[in-house]
Order: sequence, then C-alpha cells, then structure tokens
Amino acid sequence: MKFNRQLDQFAPYRTFDTEGKILMNKNESPFDIPGEIKEQMIDRWKAIPFNRYPPIESLPLRRKVSEKTGVEEGMIIAGCGSDALISDLMHLFEGEYIVTFTPTFSMYGFYAKRRGLKVVEIPLNDAFDIPETLDEEIIARAHSVFIANPNNPTGKLYDDYKIDKILRTGVPVVLDEAYWEFSGKTSLAKLREFENLIILRTFSKAMGLSGLRIGLGFAGKKLMEKWFALKSPYNLNTLSEIAAIEMLEHPETLERNIAFIIRERQRIYEAFREIATESFTNFLLLQADAFDFLYNNGILVQKFRGRLEKHIRVTVGTEYENDRLIRKLEAFLKA
Amino acid sequence: MKFNRQLDQFAPYRTFDTEGKILMNKNESPFDIPGEIKEQMIDRWKAIPFNRYPPIESLPLRRKVSEKTGVEEGMIIAGCGSDALISDLMHLFEGEYIVTFTPTFSMYGFYAKRRGLKVVEIPLNDAFDIPETLDEEIIARAHSVFIANPNNPTGKLYDDYKIDKILRTGVPVVLDEAYWEFSGKTSLAKLREFENLIILRTFSKAMGLSGLRIGLGFAGKKLMEKWFALKSPYNLNTLSEIAAIEMLEHPETLERNIAFIIRERQRIYEAFREIATESFTNFLLLQADAFDFLYNNGILVQKFRGRLEKHIRVTVGTEYENDRLIRKLEAFLKA
Repeated sequence: MKFNRQLDQFAPYRTFDTEGKILMNKNESPFDIPGEIKEQMIDRWKAIPFNRYPPIESLPLRRKVSEKTGVEEGMIIAGCGSDALISDLMHLFEGEYIVTFTPTFSMYGFYAKRRGLKVVEIPLNDAFDIPETLDEEIIARAHSVFIANPNNPTGKLYDDYKIDKILRTGVPVVLDEAYWEFSGKTSLAKLREFENLIILRTFSKAMGLSGLRIGLGFAGKKLMEKWFALKSPYNLNTLSEIAAIEMLEHPETLERNIAFIIRERQRIYEAFREIATESFTNFLLLQADAFDFLYNNGILVQKFRGRLEKHIRVTVGTEYENDRLIRKLEAFLKA
Repeated sequence: MKFNRQLDQFAPYRTFDTEGKILMNKNESPFDIPGEIKEQMIDRWKAIPFNRYPPIESLPLRRKVSEKTGVEEGMIIAGCGSDALISDLMHLFEGEYIVTFTPTFSMYGFYAKRRGLKVVEIPLNDAFDIPETLDEEIIARAHSVFIANPNNPTGKLYDDYKIDKILRTGVPVVLDEAYWEFSGKTSLAKLREFENLIILRTFSKAMGLSGLRIGLGFAGKKLMEKWFALKSPYNLNTLSEIAAIEMLEHPETLERNIAFIIRERQRIYEAFREIATESFTNFLLLQADAFDFLYNNGILVQKFRGRLEKHIRVTVGTEYENDRLIRKLEAFLKA
C-alpha cells in the first residue's frame, strides 16, 4: 500500500477551540438567515421526498440563477461549495501546473497538489497587486490560472486590464468571485468575450449559507459541456439547493446585510488605517501580530504563515463584535 | 485551452422523463422519512446557524456512527455521498490503474479515469462471481481494487475467501457496502486484521436519504490520517449531517423498512426465478429486454450496455409498485 507522495506536503487542517469566542476567522456572514425565510425553506423541504436523489445537474437552482443574472442556464453549474468546483476544474484541463498569485486562497494549491499538479506561485507586489510584468510564456502553458477577485486574504480588487492580459494568453482563467457582493464588481459580462474564462461564486459569504455548501460556476457552453461530463452527477443535495433558491428570492435581506457589512468594514478600516489594506470584501487584512492576544480576549481571527506571518485577517462581524474587536485591538497596539 | 483527453471517453449522464413514472431505476428506498422523524430533523435544523461552516471533519456524525458500530471515530470518515469518498480514494494511493470486477458500479471507473488512472476490468464469471483464479501480480500492483459487496447491478454477495485472497496481496481494497443492510453481512470486523481495507457505506439506500448525499468510509487509523489530510474539509453540509444523526436514532423504522424490502424482493424473485439473479440487495437483475416495454407502461427501470445489454435492473418498490411491475413483466414475457 503506497500512499500518494504529495500527501507528505499536506499539513493537517488547524482548528482552535471556538467555545464562547467571537468568530471572525472564516469570512462567514455574522447573520443567520431570518426566521421567516427559514420557515419558508422548511415548508419547501417538507414538500419533497428525502428518499429520492437530487434533481440531476441541479437544474432548478441553475434556472433561478439564470433568471437573476441573465446568464443562460447552460453556462451555469452548481456544486457542493466552491470547493467541489475547484476540485472539478483540476480534472478539466491538460497541463502540469496551475498558476496562483500569492498570498491567496490556499485551496487552489491544495486541490491542484491532490490531483498531482504543481503550483507556480507568482508573488503579488508590495501593494498586494498582480505585477505589471508577467512571464506570459509560463502563464500560457499552465493548466489554468486561479485568481480570487477580490482576493482573499488581502481584500484587494484587481484592475480589469491585468486580468484581461492574462485572459488574452488563452489559458483557462478561474476568477473566484466569492466576495463579489462586497465589491459590487463582477466579470460575468466577459463570459461572452472569453471562452477560457470561468467564474466561481458561493452562497457561503454574503448569502449566509456556509453550513449548506453551495457553489456556482459560470463559463461558456463549450467549456461547460466538458465540465458537466466529468462532474459528480448529484453533489448538491436537495435541501441546500432549495435553500439557495429561497435565498435568491429575498434580495432585500441580502442587500441590507451587504450594506451593513460594507459600512462596518469601513468603520474598522478607519480605526486601523495605518495597518490595514483597503478591502473590497467582508474582511480586513491587518498588519498586527495580534492573533494570540485577541484569542485570549475572546476573539478568533485568522493567522498565516510565510509572508503574512505578522498579519491577521478579521471578518466583519455584528456591531457589538466589531466594537469589541476595535477596543481590544486598540489596546493591543497601544501596549 | 486544452481539455483533459480522458473526457472524450465520458458519455453524458442519460436521463429519462420521470413524470408520473414508477421509479425503479436508482435503487432508492421507496419510503420517504416518516413525518415525525422529519419534524425532529426540522427542530434540530432550526437550532443551528446556517451561516456557519459545518462541524470540521463531521465529528458529530462520526461519533454517532462510532456509538452504533463500535468502530472508533478515528477510523470513520464522512462525505458528500459515497461519490465524494470514491473520488477522494483516487487521490490517496500511488499506482497507474484500479481493478474492478465487471459488471459493477460504473462510478469507480468514472472517478478513476477523471483522475487520469486506467481501469483494469476483470470480468465476473458466468455466475456473476469473482473468478477462482486471479492474476495476483496485476492485483498487487494496482492503485486499488474496488469491490461492491453485495455487487451492483448483479445483487450478488461474494464469499469471504475470495475477498480475503485479494486483501492478502496487500493492495488497497475498497469494499463498497452500499447495500449491506439487505444482505445482513458486513466486513467491518476485518478492519482490525487488514490495514489495506477500506469499507464504504451510504445513507442513500436502506437509510432513505438519497436526496441528502451522505456517505461513510471506514479504515485503519494509519490510512485515515492520510485520507483526512487530502479530504475537502467541509464537504458534508450541516443539514445532512443532522439528518443522518437523527436517522441513526430510529433503528426501528429502518429495520421495518429493510424487512419489508427483503420480503418484497423475494416475492419478485419467486415470480421471475428463471430470469433472475439471486439478490442480497434492494434490487434484482433480470434477463429481459423489457426496458422500453416497462417504460411505456409507466415503470422506469435501469438498462445497460455491453454484457448486460438484454437485462434490466429493478429496484424493489412499494407493494403496489411491485404488484404492477410483476403484472406488466409477466405480460411482457408471455407476449
């Protein structure tokens, strides 16, 4: 029995005791779904048989997303979180390595390595931006390029011309728009122009359904046909699919939550301007080695290794939670 | 943009219009979860936040399964259906090909090819049994061997000595016990003896939760440590995890359903002894080219290509559904 040699590189997923802590570590929404929306989900769940497999290829959800975005349903795919879609994409193309711009979301590298692909990491510049000059040869020959936009964990939104330049090499470009609701900017309209563009979205952030694991992918029809051929046929469960449809029918709740989070994010940003990166997401990257201090004060944030070793990433919480964070972090910085 | 060359082999998933049909094609349970159990699930769902990621590594469900099976929780893994676990396993080992005994569940080959592995198919003998003599060299050098026991789509249960012989080669052996509740036989006790043994189970068959996508894996701790390192951290959603725990607290419902299905399976078997393979599952393989005839008579069953071209696989349904199947199939055979 020989285990995949790549596994030696994989560190076990770190977890911390979350009991009684303010959770600002996973970029979740601080708001649970309102009770009346949950009741409507429950009514729909009661009306469907649990003993039957989910709708093939998640057609009901894809129809609803099509209605909301104007993208035709044949250009939309759904799966068990963006994770399942990222993992799928590793199987979709030929090539020996993916390209990422680091620091970025760690799961691109995780799913690539698991698949036996190498990861070419191009460091972001000092402003956490994609460098002006890129080795287009290396990019064009890649299996695919993964770009979170806005980026996690920096919160940075990239200029169009930088992404377009990469798209024009013809390499498959995966634009992960997990946080697009907080930036108000999307590249969906570019799908008509670039058949090598794939856009990912999630119900785990602004939509507040992290526990239900729902991700969406968008791409041209030629690519989608191939993607559907290799996709797990039933990986989005019926309950989550129904919940996602229900959420899409309540844009007012969503808009209220997004407006609140943007306001609060700016409040935290103003409080820590000197150590903060401007963010277009629901979190802030702060240059402060404050993980332990905050944890001991009841606040769990995200910490990193390598280039961001002395940084923390803080998810925007409720007003009370943000007040507490600001107070504690100010105390830490003054000490 | 170069697509994975393997994809050319992948046929699109076939579907049929199911409107108004008796569904005997997917080996689902014919019984939805009883209303009072659904209510209890709903009460539990109301008590948890949808906006938080699921419990890391599905610990609550693994604890409950440990309590029910006596297998320690470190030897149990959970995921988004057996599909997610089968897909994971393709990443876990080194090797160039998997071995299957055909005809068998098609998804082993699907996930292997997706991963870039070859599939060595060893044909079952005329009795749909594993051949007495195997090329142990070929087996020992494989990435892994996948055996559904009882097998799908034949319904056959294999003798222990045949599986033990394969296990003794040291190759990773994946025993898929998706239908074990209908055979009453499990190899869980062998986990202590063979560290190369992996057992899969599902909540989609006897447990009646196909729509919720819940699969379980069992293996020794050394293997599990590696498996957890490469697993998607959150691929079982919170709602499904809670539903699975709730179902495990209602063994009386489960036992009643299983007893009913076994009784009905035997009734169908007796009606079609001459064309049926004895089954240890919730379906029957019948040598009858009756797919179209049954479909036109409102009954959807499973059909196949290749060696089983003139066979159908029929899932045991409710008493009414089985009556109807027997009547229609008798008419077909007399015609």
